[in-house]
Amino acid sequence: MPAFIFDLDGTLADSVYQHVIAWHSALRECGLEIAMWRLHRKIGMSGALLLRAFADEAGREFDDPLKARLEALHTAHFARLRRDIKAFPEVPELFADLQKRDLKFAIATSGDLKDVQPLLDLVQLPHGIPVISKKDAPNPKPDPALFLKAAEKLGSRSEETIVVGDSVWDMLAARRAHFLGIGLLTGGYGESEMTGAGAFRVFADPAQLRRHLYEAGIP
Amino acid sequence: MPAFIFDLDGTLADSVYQHVIAWHSALRECGLEIAMWRLHRKIGMSGALLLRAFADEAGREFDDPLKARLEALHTAHFARLRRDIKAFPEVPELFADLQKRDLKFAIATSGDLKDVQPLLDLVQLPHGIPVISKKDAPNPKPDPALFLKAAEKLGSRSEETIVVGDSVWDMLAARRAHFLGIGLLTGGYGESEMTGAGAFRVFADPAQLRRHLYEAGIP
Repeated sequence: MPAFIFDLDGTLADSVYQHVIAWHSALRECGLEIAMWRLHRKIGMSGALLLRAFADEAGREFDDPLKARLEALHTAHFARLRRDIKAFPEVPELFADLQKRDLKFAIATSGDLKDVQPLLDLVQLPHGIPVISKKDAPNPKPDPALFLKAAEKLGSRSEETIVVGDSVWDMLAARRAHFLGIGLLTGGYGESEMTGAGAFRVFADPAQLRRHLYEAGIP
Repeated sequence: MPAFIFDLDGTLADSVYQHVIAWHSALRECGLEIAMWRLHRKIGMSGALLLRAFADEAGREFDDPLKARLEALHTAHFARLRRDIKAFPEVPELFADLQKRDLKFAIATSGDLKDVQPLLDLVQLPHGIPVISKKDAPNPKPDPALFLKAAEKLGSRSEETIVVGDSVWDMLAARRAHFLGIGLLTGGYGESEMTGAGAFRVFADPAQLRRHLYEAGIP
């Protein structure tokens, strides 16, 4: 039976647009003007790679003090916007359906555990479900390390492991790990962008995935 | 020689994400929870149709008092976010390049003229360029009326008229008017979504369009 690895930000919680705004504000405060849509297309990459991508868009190098300042500003802006974030519909019901069928699943997020705890509360993650975060696999997505670590924790083989994510970076990391990727449209990407990045199936959101679990071979 | 009709919001000014946030806040204040990405995919439709689309997402009818309240709340939230909006790079230079070549162009926006004036100032629209707004063509996009009115104002025939827009709704309205549509990625849609809606060419932003005017047959 399949085992599921869920991305958190933008996949289970509606937080992508707040990240776009938070990064936009942080960059602007450092004198860097990058269009919203360009930031949006990079969300889902993590940590160091995200800043590398922003530097590329800005057409200049970011030194360490600038990177630290950007990270701190993003954290501050995101904290301010966090109260507006909600879980997507039927996420707790999806978890319950998986548990009812004895299917294993984990959360894999590139955030720091302390930053992601409020989101885990929001999506009502059941007790005992593994959460793999930055400290477990520091290499940022689309590096496959985070998902590989999650599968190791679940004890699932590559042919039975399915990654559910909202960004092309999730799908690319899933491919590199030899896992199947299921894309959700919740991150604001178009369906063909997700299939182009290797998604096996694309669903609108967790609620639609829940009603189509049979497409992943689950009776 | 081609004549250009430019959409304003999201095409010349980086305002789509602020509209998403403003609608999200307005809807939530009325007890309606719709995911950000679903709102994003509707921006670029106008007025009555946008509210019709939101009602569909919310799974209920919106009566007239609710519609009026949503519109007023959106206007208030958007006004608060407007100071963060910038023009996309090289928009004044694009206008200058068109004028240098004696090419006709107009702005076609489904907003009220009083609401769009700050955006027109932001993109530094040259004096004398026609601006077609809601009062000239009340039917909302993807109805082609707004673009047809703009072409009439420019005196351009359908085979020489090019619509530049950032949303699939612009491309659909352009097709219905028998005009060529050029899509920009500035609204956050993927390239294949724009070509799928009929875009003749897709460019990243106004700056890239400016460097590829020859692809529209302009020497």
